Amino acid sequence: MVAATTSLDTLCINSIRMLAVDAVNKSNSGHPGLPMGCAPMGYTLWDKFLHHNPKNPQWFNRDRFVLSAGHGCMLLYALLHLTGYDSVTIDDIKQFRQWGARTPGHPETFETPGVEVTTGPLGAGISNAVGLAIAEAHLGAKFNKPDEKIVDHFTYVIMGDGCNQEGVSSEACSLAGHLKLGKLIALYDDNQITIDGRTDVSFTEDVLKRYESYGWHVQHIPNGNTDVDAIANAIALAKSVTDQPSIIKVSTTIGYGSPNKSDTAGVHGAPLGEEEANLTRKQLNWTYGPFEVPQEVYGHYQKAIERGSQLEAKWNQTLSSYRNKYPNEAAEFERMLRGELPNGWDKDLPTYSPDDKGLATRKHSQICLGALGPNLPELIGGSADLTHSNYTDIKGETGSFQSETPEKRYLHFGVREHAMAAILNGIAYHNSGLIPYGGTFLVFADYMRGSMRLSALSELGVIYVLTHDSIGVGEDGPTHQPIETIPSLRAIPNMLVFRPGDGNETSGAYKVAIENRKRPSSLCLSRQGMANQANSSIEKVAFGGYILEDCEGGSPELILIGTGSELDLCVQASKKLTASGHKIRVVSMPCVELFEEQSQSYKESVLPTSIRKRIIVEAAQSFGWHKYIGLDGESITMKGFGASAPGGTCMEKFGFTVENVVAKAQKLLS
Amino acid sequence: MVAATTSLDTLCINSIRMLAVDAVNKSNSGHPGLPMGCAPMGYTLWDKFLHHNPKNPQWFNRDRFVLSAGHGCMLLYALLHLTGYDSVTIDDIKQFRQWGARTPGHPETFETPGVEVTTGPLGAGISNAVGLAIAEAHLGAKFNKPDEKIVDHFTYVIMGDGCNQEGVSSEACSLAGHLKLGKLIALYDDNQITIDGRTDVSFTEDVLKRYESYGWHVQHIPNGNTDVDAIANAIALAKSVTDQPSIIKVSTTIGYGSPNKSDTAGVHGAPLGEEEANLTRKQLNWTYGPFEVPQEVYGHYQKAIERGSQLEAKWNQTLSSYRNKYPNEAAEFERMLRGELPNGWDKDLPTYSPDDKGLATRKHSQICLGALGPNLPELIGGSADLTHSNYTDIKGETGSFQSETPEKRYLHFGVREHAMAAILNGIAYHNSGLIPYGGTFLVFADYMRGSMRLSALSELGVIYVLTHDSIGVGEDGPTHQPIETIPSLRAIPNMLVFRPGDGNETSGAYKVAIENRKRPSSLCLSRQGMANQANSSIEKVAFGGYILEDCEGGSPELILIGTGSELDLCVQASKKLTASGHKIRVVSMPCVELFEEQSQSYKESVLPTSIRKRIIVEAAQSFGWHKYIGLDGESITMKGFGASAPGGTCMEKFGFTVENVVAKAQKLLS
Repeated sequence: MVAATTSLDTLCINSIRMLAVDAVNKSNSGHPGLPMGCAPMGYTLWDKFLHHNPKNPQWFNRDRFVLSAGHGCMLLYALLHLTGYDSVTIDDIKQFRQWGARTPGHPETFETPGVEVTTGPLGAGISNAVGLAIAEAHLGAKFNKPDEKIVDHFTYVIMGDGCNQEGVSSEACSLAGHLKLGKLIALYDDNQITIDGRTDVSFTEDVLKRYESYGWHVQHIPNGNTDVDAIANAIALAKSVTDQPSIIKVSTTIGYGSPNKSDTAGVHGAPLGEEEANLTRKQLNWTYGPFEVPQEVYGHYQKAIERGSQLEAKWNQTLSSYRNKYPNEAAEFERMLRGELPNGWDKDLPTYSPDDKGLATRKHSQICLGALGPNLPELIGGSADLTHSNYTDIKGETGSFQSETPEKRYLHFGVREHAMAAILNGIAYHNSGLIPYGGTFLVFADYMRGSMRLSALSELGVIYVLTHDSIGVGEDGPTHQPIETIPSLRAIPNMLVFRPGDGNETSGAYKVAIENRKRPSSLCLSRQGMANQANSSIEKVAFGGYILEDCEGGSPELILIGTGSELDLCVQASKKLTASGHKIRVVSMPCVELFEEQSQSYKESVLPTSIRKRIIVEAAQSFGWHKYIGLDGESITMKGFGASAPGGTCMEKFGFTVENVVAKAQKLLS
Repeated sequence: MVAATTSLDTLCINSIRMLAVDAVNKSNSGHPGLPMGCAPMGYTLWDKFLHHNPKNPQWFNRDRFVLSAGHGCMLLYALLHLTGYDSVTIDDIKQFRQWGARTPGHPETFETPGVEVTTGPLGAGISNAVGLAIAEAHLGAKFNKPDEKIVDHFTYVIMGDGCNQEGVSSEACSLAGHLKLGKLIALYDDNQITIDGRTDVSFTEDVLKRYESYGWHVQHIPNGNTDVDAIANAIALAKSVTDQPSIIKVSTTIGYGSPNKSDTAGVHGAPLGEEEANLTRKQLNWTYGPFEVPQEVYGHYQKAIERGSQLEAKWNQTLSSYRNKYPNEAAEFERMLRGELPNGWDKDLPTYSPDDKGLATRKHSQICLGALGPNLPELIGGSADLTHSNYTDIKGETGSFQSETPEKRYLHFGVREHAMAAILNGIAYHNSGLIPYGGTFLVFADYMRGSMRLSALSELGVIYVLTHDSIGVGEDGPTHQPIETIPSLRAIPNMLVFRPGDGNETSGAYKVAIENRKRPSSLCLSRQGMANQANSSIEKVAFGGYILEDCEGGSPELILIGTGSELDLCVQASKKLTASGHKIRVVSMPCVELFEEQSQSYKESVLPTSIRKRIIVEAAQSFGWHKYIGLDGESITMKGFGASAPGGTCMEKFGFTVENVVAKAQKLLS
């Protein structure tokens, strides 16, 4: 028997390989190449290093594992299955990529317990991992005591060539090096194959030298196909380097074991087919049938269950001891883990009356952050190098999260918007109660849209603070003036897009955003000041849209719908139109998505179907607004890009004046 | 007199500094810090190296200069003014950042002749420059002869810390190193200040080591504030290195000359103010008033006019000689420079009838590229490592643009979507007739949206080939299934978004996209096959939307609007509804933007205002469609993200079936 001469290590590794081959063959869809090449590093990491508890995937102090090369998800599903997670049975593996299965085509946190981050879009996972490591470092610095460490885990990543080519990973890994995140360890699957063929058609840089330039600790394992000891030694060394993140380049053969397809692009994303699967079985001395795993392999892998149970029990003892010694800290820690907000967290959110000076909503946002900061210790965030423009600082706090000061909660992301969003996602994925926020100019949401989409898809309550929200930006000109950005964000499912019209609405937007821990929020905030309204309130924002001003008696003839800095134009125009005898309603619509969620009767009460004379006033593309103005309404919106000139001039030249609103209304009324 | 001891070099340099100070002070808005720090490198480059003709900014063989740090635009405006460009007079500089001025807040090609690329969004310019260098290398390899070089110029860049932090530049510069673009030379303004303060809050990587890892030639000039000779020597050396792109790190002091604000973040993006401007004058021994430039400075700078005239004259001689020796090549070269398409370029675009096998539109796209390739030699493009999924290859051609084969026109961008878009923009900015295209999955348009926006803003006829355009993607699941991407692209002004519904419409989309050299096109193409329609045609696509099927006699009761893979669902449903006695119209809407441009009467003829029973069927978010379905219509669209399952299953489960269209229609009709 050939199998007899095969070590248990090899059997365990080949179990991953063959589960991947069989699952992809059965579904006739998927990516067998990476799991076959990465099986040795996956096995070594999970069997010899990873702290986790298969029977409690949510155990807090587990090491985080991120499969950044998400297309290789069969590696992860195989490991989850083999180590005893209830979420991935052999039947789930047989249902790979089928409707309703817990084994979707790329790993998704919301489908499969044990999956730490949703991956597939390349570069995202390693960048999320930087956020996970930041969360760990911050919470450790915040809660650990010299005698009791309740936060203490590593973040491991498997990434491929694609992840290393994507710019987002360059941004995030440069920052990780700066921050000296020593508990972040990445295994780089260097298989020299991408979809277009060998990497030498486009990717010949010296990757490790690049990581060295970022300040990472680097290692190389020439034979990642079989040299388990080398992999284990490298991970052990990486763990011992505490003041640098680590990358271990593991040279492998994609599709290892397949005699005709290994080391080709053909094995990256297509099934081997039955014949080649049989040849692979032969080459790997694999004597088992499809989806068959030797009992001794299960027996070995599933020692993880006992190990995990002991690890969690030990941690529970530590936590118990911590609770006795440090009851206040423990209470806060456990509250955060439960995902509960502290009592009175919103008590200092300011309210305003029209007598209060009109400020820019970015300024109101700064005041909100200052009001939330002391009451919401889990708030953590910063800006992509625009702190003094986004006003993302928390009043009264100094210093920032740096390698020497990880207890600080302000993050300088640098000019790295995409990494910022991915890191914020990573902090949210850590699932430890932290509420991440990050700021940039609204127009640069485009730079990080890939990760904003993942916030929405993966149900992460990230708060995006997006200032300079229209042509009101002024002199910086059209490259800096969002026109289509607000509509494009509104198009993302599960994303709350706020454009508050004054101070009360800004406070209201923060209230809803903080409360929504399962969906991200984009706060679109003005550079320029605007008046405070008489009838706005924090509470009304939760309805998404509401009647701000209404005609006296009877039904309105015309409805003006406004958001943000254009809301007051509607109010002023309404006054003039009312003075000339018209019945006008002004609807404030700070959040279209929340309005959509209201009852049909509420929506009808705000925007009665019978009233078709409606005008939307928003200094952005009209795209999307016809849902409310229909075929008969009008829009005062942007038709094209903006221009460089003082903000007030831009607003006037592009038609955002009371006079223009009045004129359009009169035309519609006539 | 202090000024007497000042060298002419210094006077020239300080002219830039003070024009920047004065312009930003007068407009009370802008970024004086970079021009003050970069004046020496700007002067040295423009005075001693740059081949250009101020009196003909469009002279083809000029060196390209890209100010990647676009906020420092006063550096560029000062250089354009001082060297004698008619586009920037002293009055233009006095009108800095004002409505209608040719000196907007960031450099914009469409406002100011002499500006080569629109910059401001950081990282974009250096990445565009990689495209410019690719264009030069390709055209050189294509047209130059051993005895006549008609394409021969450098591409110079000034970039800052921000550009180096942005991931897009990492992607593009890694590729530039791989491609050994020896005529690309970047000056990196290392001033160690960003908006959040000193770069050491977030950016401590070894930048030059990183560029070395990409394969670049690197140099460092420790004193960029005054050491003009060192700058000149470094540029000369960089020019001599022909098989590597070059980066020269020039350490400078931001706001050099300002006694109180230099070397602080305060001088990055705010006026110095009058008082500090006076102190700066004193420190720089600058005895001239605001906007005053010494005549000797003009005299020296404007030698560029004579030099430029001679350079162009000499090149014209070369071209003339080339024309005599190589009339065919010259004719093609000059046709391309005139921006004319070759006769019969579209003659092989295929047409189809319903008898032809239904293919995926990505496959139709591949056939179009194959049909265009031989007739349109200026077509150049590739894929971000998805050649065999996007089908972006040109049939019959082998090999790709590599350092040894720059004459090839297929580009392997690697897994670098954002760089791809920026490079395509750069090829378009070269303005030499090349027609750039690039492919990725539609959902990953999000990764490159920053540069797609710039294609639209800067009027660049880039063609984006975006395949796998809906949940029809299937097993790869929601991370790979665009839902909101099509609406989000439609929201961008000046972007044509096509979603062809069969083979004819795909050919038609290519025809319009190729003809539109002043606006980008996004072709949204299916993974899965679809039927060819009886009444579609290449020509009808130019109307954006048209009647594909209509009821016999009289006015329709209901209009079905479909796009892409859902068009045939409308056609099939229409047949069933017609059979049950209803009058149904089917409108195909392959390009909303083109439809919007038609006459009111045409639009009314397709979608009569009186017919309010309308249903849109599109496997994407409904966002934007209410413009056509109004308050009374219906939509069969996606409400949320997709799922991992075979594509057909996804379509069915999410309601994209003939039965569902019929049911919704019947409900609306009842």
